[in-house]
Amino acid sequence: MAKSFLCTRDEPVVQTKAGKLRGYLLNGTYTFHGIKYADAKRFQAPTEVEPWEGIKDALSYGFVCPLMQQDTPNGEILVPHRYWPMDENCQYLNVWTQSLDAGAKKPVMVWLHGGGFAAGSSIEQAAYEGENMSKYGDVVVVSLNHRLNILGYMNLESFGEKYANSGNAGNADMVAALQWIHDNIASFGGDPENVTIFGQSGGGMKVWCLMQTPSADGLFHKGVVQSGVIDGFTDSPSTDGTKIVNAMLKELGFAQGDAEKLETVPYAQMVEAYMKVARPLAEQGEYIGGNPIPNDFYVGDPLEVGFTEHAKTIPVMVGTAFGEFNFARSVDKHNMTQEQIQALIAEKFGAANAQELIALFVKTYPNKDLADLLDVDSLFRAPSKKFIAAKAEHPQSPTYSYLFAYEFPYDNGKPAWHCSEIPYVFHNAEKVPVCNKVGVSDQLEEQVFGAWVNFARTGSPNHALLPQWPACKPGDEATMIFDEKCEVRHNHDNDLMALHVKVAPNPFEQDQPAQH
Amino acid sequence: MAKSFLCTRDEPVVQTKAGKLRGYLLNGTYTFHGIKYADAKRFQAPTEVEPWEGIKDALSYGFVCPLMQQDTPNGEILVPHRYWPMDENCQYLNVWTQSLDAGAKKPVMVWLHGGGFAAGSSIEQAAYEGENMSKYGDVVVVSLNHRLNILGYMNLESFGEKYANSGNAGNADMVAALQWIHDNIASFGGDPENVTIFGQSGGGMKVWCLMQTPSADGLFHKGVVQSGVIDGFTDSPSTDGTKIVNAMLKELGFAQGDAEKLETVPYAQMVEAYMKVARPLAEQGEYIGGNPIPNDFYVGDPLEVGFTEHAKTIPVMVGTAFGEFNFARSVDKHNMTQEQIQALIAEKFGAANAQELIALFVKTYPNKDLADLLDVDSLFRAPSKKFIAAKAEHPQSPTYSYLFAYEFPYDNGKPAWHCSEIPYVFHNAEKVPVCNKVGVSDQLEEQVFGAWVNFARTGSPNHALLPQWPACKPGDEATMIFDEKCEVRHNHDNDLMALHVKVAPNPFEQDQPAQH
Repeated sequence: MAKSFLCTRDEPVVQTKAGKLRGYLLNGTYTFHGIKYADAKRFQAPTEVEPWEGIKDALSYGFVCPLMQQDTPNGEILVPHRYWPMDENCQYLNVWTQSLDAGAKKPVMVWLHGGGFAAGSSIEQAAYEGENMSKYGDVVVVSLNHRLNILGYMNLESFGEKYANSGNAGNADMVAALQWIHDNIASFGGDPENVTIFGQSGGGMKVWCLMQTPSADGLFHKGVVQSGVIDGFTDSPSTDGTKIVNAMLKELGFAQGDAEKLETVPYAQMVEAYMKVARPLAEQGEYIGGNPIPNDFYVGDPLEVGFTEHAKTIPVMVGTAFGEFNFARSVDKHNMTQEQIQALIAEKFGAANAQELIALFVKTYPNKDLADLLDVDSLFRAPSKKFIAAKAEHPQSPTYSYLFAYEFPYDNGKPAWHCSEIPYVFHNAEKVPVCNKVGVSDQLEEQVFGAWVNFARTGSPNHALLPQWPACKPGDEATMIFDEKCEVRHNHDNDLMALHVKVAPNPFEQDQPAQH
Repeated sequence: MAKSFLCTRDEPVVQTKAGKLRGYLLNGTYTFHGIKYADAKRFQAPTEVEPWEGIKDALSYGFVCPLMQQDTPNGEILVPHRYWPMDENCQYLNVWTQSLDAGAKKPVMVWLHGGGFAAGSSIEQAAYEGENMSKYGDVVVVSLNHRLNILGYMNLESFGEKYANSGNAGNADMVAALQWIHDNIASFGGDPENVTIFGQSGGGMKVWCLMQTPSADGLFHKGVVQSGVIDGFTDSPSTDGTKIVNAMLKELGFAQGDAEKLETVPYAQMVEAYMKVARPLAEQGEYIGGNPIPNDFYVGDPLEVGFTEHAKTIPVMVGTAFGEFNFARSVDKHNMTQEQIQALIAEKFGAANAQELIALFVKTYPNKDLADLLDVDSLFRAPSKKFIAAKAEHPQSPTYSYLFAYEFPYDNGKPAWHCSEIPYVFHNAEKVPVCNKVGVSDQLEEQVFGAWVNFARTGSPNHALLPQWPACKPGDEATMIFDEKCEVRHNHDNDLMALHVKVAPNPFEQDQPAQH
């Protein structure tokens, strides 16, 4: 059936601080794509965009940040992707909203994409589309691109004042976007005093990085960290970029110290030089960029330095997926004997640990198949538990814990993988075939989606379709298990995780298809 | 509402000539993405893929052919795009079908994408998605990637036997795809004896190129040329690649004649060399590749050399959009006086021609706004009329003519542009916001879609929702005007086109956003 569509010369048009923008209206949802929220020279701080006269179109997604290497299409059935033209002039955001009334004051949900700090974009996954979340949740949805990899995270500060904080330029872009939202979102029907940032994987890391970023204080009010805590990911023994930058300059034939030359080298050429020099330096424990670094702008990993006083006041929801990096084909558990499964468990975790691990798994997940132990994640879950416990020490704001433990109707039954909750969060299961299970997935979607939207609206994820979900307290991790039947359990996997994290092979060192 | 989804370890699985493929089933539509239909070394002929054991996944779109330059996101409201990872190993096709019964023998519709012979892909536009066409039309839909630009159309034959027909390698890929369809489509419920190729812009050109390609005879049975005839586009005074290839070799520092070196140069480097040397040669009238060339494989443009005996037997449907390259903002006709509009017409076409052109336009389109004359196309329409007239001389098969003349509810009313009929053809108006107009576009979609699908099924586009649509006869171009009210008119724009094509400025020489 045809939808109602409106995009005339002057409707819908929104007045922003810098000028007027035209979007379109489709079946009640106002959509604005590719709004420039900042400009930036390479390695330098973002600046406000120049004001303009007349009406600019916000009808095409903006450039996404260039990536250091191209993806190979793979595993699209698990995580359907979208790609887009790339340019480092990538400070663009998108808005979906149900109202352009400045008095509407609807909750604002700002999506921070995954891909570590090196890859991804605001539209990288089909599930990131904001229309349904805005429509069904009556919220203002914003997604954004920012600088990544060596464009967003390369510390050149020793080469001149203008490169101050270049090691966190990508995060500075995000703060600029939050400032743009603060200044302009009321014109899109949003409440600048009720902004929730949420993100998955690298996007989850961005959430807690921004909690630890004083210049972002007051620009957002709640945070959701989805599969975004991982041990040691942002650790770097050094943060001084002098060696890596000089090595790149040398590789490119420029004089040592002449970092300005890097501002004009084509990106692909700079990447090539970086690829040649980065590994040897990394092996010597040297800083090679790629992740945020603690400095005046960014206080540091809360599990290292503690939460800032402001971060302690931010309600958070933190969780992971049951299987995370189990992208490889799961075992065909319904066509195997228990002995075969036990043999695989012994092979994966070591014969000495198998029986204890099995006992803990059966106690932790009495309704799961034993074979699911082969898929269970601790890489994200164990540090997420630490994060939750640390945050729950601070009673100034609530900390909610979840585990997305749904088994998908794929490949004869596959436990939830990294990214697999995102379509439900965005109410986009209809856009991702594998998320559909008649009689089951609609309810799961309403449960997950409702939790996210209610958390954004009120600071609590509780809603009528879920059992009562309390915040965590010191020593009491109350975890919402999202599954065919949702339930809250307390400290349910403490023992399992304690052992699993010690005996599980590191999935980064296993052969896995590349996924974000 | 959740859709029914099936993708187990062994369902849905199809046996092809080379091996088994797994797709997925969603609400009744079987989908297979990224089926490799051929392999090819650079500049060489495609070969059959190696057989494999076990089941391969066809669940991710395959690589698309690398493009010589990146798009800038622009005009997405008119033509929403999709991008994808690129690699010259790009011989992939996709299948959507309602049945995997080898006896089902459903019509097969093979989409050839646009972008000249240089750009685009099987999934480049959101509207290319085949699910709805298969579902609502009960047809098997296939879309395919093939080699483009200097990978697909660079004549190296003077450098060695293995490069024979390299000037048409991209078209040879398409023939290989049609051969794959012939050999395998029955297993996907399709009828190998009822295959329709259809395409738009460059895709329309591919349709008539394949009609003139003897090795494709019998591999398809009908053709639809959408905005795919343009004067001089494939003309080249020379077809010998010796000069351009030697110039590239020189630019790259290789010896003259050593074309094998080009097989291993990274694509980006080869493009860079090509870009430097091609323009001067083109200005001297030399062949620089990029389009098919007449040879033993390809007989040549039917308007130059006539239709082959086989092509004369192919039912065709040929048409264009009213405005084609009118991507720039159309005038705000409802807020202008007739005098202002007449002044713009005089400015565009020359004062000496304005009155005659206006008189012809009013006679031709009594129900259109005079301002639409500013948007009317002859670049495609005039040569398409020649094509239709030439084909209609051959009574062995019918020739149907159409004009897509709908005015979109965008920007206060905009005549149909290049690509704008595609969403209706694929029954994908729901995926393209600008295609939606409550009370109007649903009917238009059924009318357009029904014509394409019925043409594929029976060789005639007639169906119950359209007025009777006769085939063209010599001297009688019966044109279906697709609009809010569809009607058939005879030779309705002969006089208008005869003048317009003479006095209209060439849109290629005007400032236009890049579109395909």
